[in-house]
Amino acid sequence: MENGAKKTGGYANGEIETPNNITIKGILGLLLANIDCNDKRRVISLGMGDPSAYTCFRTADVAEDAVVDALRSQKFNGYSPTVGLPQTRKAISEYLSRDLPYKLSPDDAFVTSGCTQAIDVALSILARPGMNILLPKPGFPIYELCAAFRNLEVRHYNLLPNSGWEVDLDDVEALADHNTVAMAIINPGNPCGNVYSYQHLKKIAETAKRMKIVVIADEVYGHLAFGDTPFVPMGIFGSLVPVLTLGSLSKRWIVPGWRLGWFVINDPCSTFKNSKVIERIKKYFDILGGPATFIQVSTIIYCACLTHAAVPRILQQTDEAFFADTINTLKQSSDICYEKIKEVPCITCPYKPEGSMALMVKLNLSLLKDISDDIDFCFKLAKEESVIFLPGITVGMKNWVRITFAVEASSLDEAFGRVKSFYLRHSNQQERY
Amino acid sequence: MENGAKKTGGYANGEIETPNNITIKGILGLLLANIDCNDKRRVISLGMGDPSAYTCFRTADVAEDAVVDALRSQKFNGYSPTVGLPQTRKAISEYLSRDLPYKLSPDDAFVTSGCTQAIDVALSILARPGMNILLPKPGFPIYELCAAFRNLEVRHYNLLPNSGWEVDLDDVEALADHNTVAMAIINPGNPCGNVYSYQHLKKIAETAKRMKIVVIADEVYGHLAFGDTPFVPMGIFGSLVPVLTLGSLSKRWIVPGWRLGWFVINDPCSTFKNSKVIERIKKYFDILGGPATFIQVSTIIYCACLTHAAVPRILQQTDEAFFADTINTLKQSSDICYEKIKEVPCITCPYKPEGSMALMVKLNLSLLKDISDDIDFCFKLAKEESVIFLPGITVGMKNWVRITFAVEASSLDEAFGRVKSFYLRHSNQQERY
Repeated sequence: MENGAKKTGGYANGEIETPNNITIKGILGLLLANIDCNDKRRVISLGMGDPSAYTCFRTADVAEDAVVDALRSQKFNGYSPTVGLPQTRKAISEYLSRDLPYKLSPDDAFVTSGCTQAIDVALSILARPGMNILLPKPGFPIYELCAAFRNLEVRHYNLLPNSGWEVDLDDVEALADHNTVAMAIINPGNPCGNVYSYQHLKKIAETAKRMKIVVIADEVYGHLAFGDTPFVPMGIFGSLVPVLTLGSLSKRWIVPGWRLGWFVINDPCSTFKNSKVIERIKKYFDILGGPATFIQVSTIIYCACLTHAAVPRILQQTDEAFFADTINTLKQSSDICYEKIKEVPCITCPYKPEGSMALMVKLNLSLLKDISDDIDFCFKLAKEESVIFLPGITVGMKNWVRITFAVEASSLDEAFGRVKSFYLRHSNQQERY
Repeated sequence: MENGAKKTGGYANGEIETPNNITIKGILGLLLANIDCNDKRRVISLGMGDPSAYTCFRTADVAEDAVVDALRSQKFNGYSPTVGLPQTRKAISEYLSRDLPYKLSPDDAFVTSGCTQAIDVALSILARPGMNILLPKPGFPIYELCAAFRNLEVRHYNLLPNSGWEVDLDDVEALADHNTVAMAIINPGNPCGNVYSYQHLKKIAETAKRMKIVVIADEVYGHLAFGDTPFVPMGIFGSLVPVLTLGSLSKRWIVPGWRLGWFVINDPCSTFKNSKVIERIKKYFDILGGPATFIQVSTIIYCACLTHAAVPRILQQTDEAFFADTINTLKQSSDICYEKIKEVPCITCPYKPEGSMALMVKLNLSLLKDISDDIDFCFKLAKEESVIFLPGITVGMKNWVRITFAVEASSLDEAFGRVKSFYLRHSNQQERY
């Protein structure tokens, strides 16, 4: 063996550097482990955006049938192209083009293993030494973790809780420099439940254009808007500024475990995309394991003869009534959640959610006698009441808490009943009650 | 905008560096595009290891039923832990432990989106600035591409065509230095069809131990051995040297499109694994989109009540007759392929394949009047005969060709008939015929 640089401790383990980011799943695991097993009540988790466990949130029959049909045909057990099946790319581009002033090409759409992989694709293809990305605070911590693994510096811009969690555009301008490659927005918003207006999105686009940065538009909650503000895809401004749209079947079809997502380039003027960028993206997909072929096929109607005349199935044939039901259920549960929060003095919600599946509440620690911060709050709540909230620090906001409202109404009722008891027990103002 | 470093050409596209590796799918795409559309004969591709298109290579009924049952239960549409479902991790660890002198723990097994993602996990968790990895030549180019994206230097060691494609261990010793983190082996071998003996694997383990490097054992073709040498998993030597085993359902169950793979740490002495390494691996999985939850479930029998008493389904209940059929079919087609090669003077196969789905043949260009190299050979063959072989340069061996024999016998017959015509047309020794 040549005499090279140091390799300490056998197999160089000592040198392995791991990002020290807190992850949502990591902290939820710790909270679950902290549940009192002597508590005979059921655990109610309002910690994660996955409502598929509740019967009021079931996927559409057409979606399930499409997957079974594709599998049973025995025609789709083989590899698909790493960027996704051509017909699936076409189905995704057509699905998104419905809401755009221009038409996406199938070549603009890449099929990913859920929106998580779409995030990694976006950050990995943009990452280069010395570059940075602007991320929202609060936000979704997979971005920070991914940036750490891909050596992309993160700079946080604030969302404004008292202005519908809009982007602080002054912040964006102050943070961006010549090494900034992109800014990410999440709309409808996780963790805040915000839905951005056309006007605000336009301002974001104009700011990004001035800064010459790409906009990563995380629309995994796309179309899940149930308030006064309709959902507007960021891609509408694709002629103004290049927009990388990330999305998936996960939330709108309530199948997060199917892992069918997309990474889409909205760039009709070819400001960002060129043959080098496309080449890099395609090569990057070659090292990824994408979603199962037969699940990709389920998004399209395939013909027994494998004709090229396939048309979208899940993406086009899902009944509007299914979407309306989901929106209605989400609206009801978010309303319940928002009202219940008002009954607990130590938490306040600055914004009535209009979309997605979660909202943020501010902790008022001055009303609590023995709670030190959001982590302490959530761990004690888990231990004493078997209710799980996500500490705000996980999403970038210390002494805030994220609450997922996409659960059945009875669970919300029960959860907030327990939260009230918890508050009364820990309140330093007990005399009032 | 602050005055930072250069950002040229808007959105910094000019700076994007893309690895210039040739990929198998990339070159196969070009070959397909080069087919003469006036040739009315069917295209026969012996270019890729995906036999699922042929009726003689069909997956087991139990596997297909397991997936449909899991999906139809409507219990597994939600997220799974990013490292995989606990029961699936258990099923994989038990499946692999059957062939090991020690028992793997479920915590040693991580569920991946096919073996491709397992390769990325292995290289990404080992990659650190200045480090290098030893890869086989010929090999599987996804390793090189992945190493390029993850900034890991690649050093190639030779496989020895005249010694059953065994690892040139002198080469390994000469190449390894203090910055070498691992060596990768592929067994059963792609692209060579080799199956390594227990003795050779032991020597590899001893060499790696001396070099203090981890062995990445790509066993995606595990158990697909049909010659005199039985398949021995590298994990057998896990007590001697840490072994990272990569595998999947893809090849043995003939479902490459299902994207269900694994990354498994064989390290009973905990030489490599420690809490820091495990933490890093877990975090890395948080940014990956893994395989669909219901496909993960299909590897186990789940109970309606979601009990923890799940036992392996696909991994344990697949009929031995199914495996025997596949082995038998592979043996027959590899024999046909090996014999047919002998009938074409300009290609020679130095080793009769004993496993996997491919073999390597050496081109004798001196017998051909107008073929400059392996790429030229494959492009002209595609254009003139609608037969696709993979140029050896793609897998690291100039003027060799990789041939996949996992196709039905009639396709092999027809393909080699055309290759013979091709040879006769391009031979510089026509007078002999």
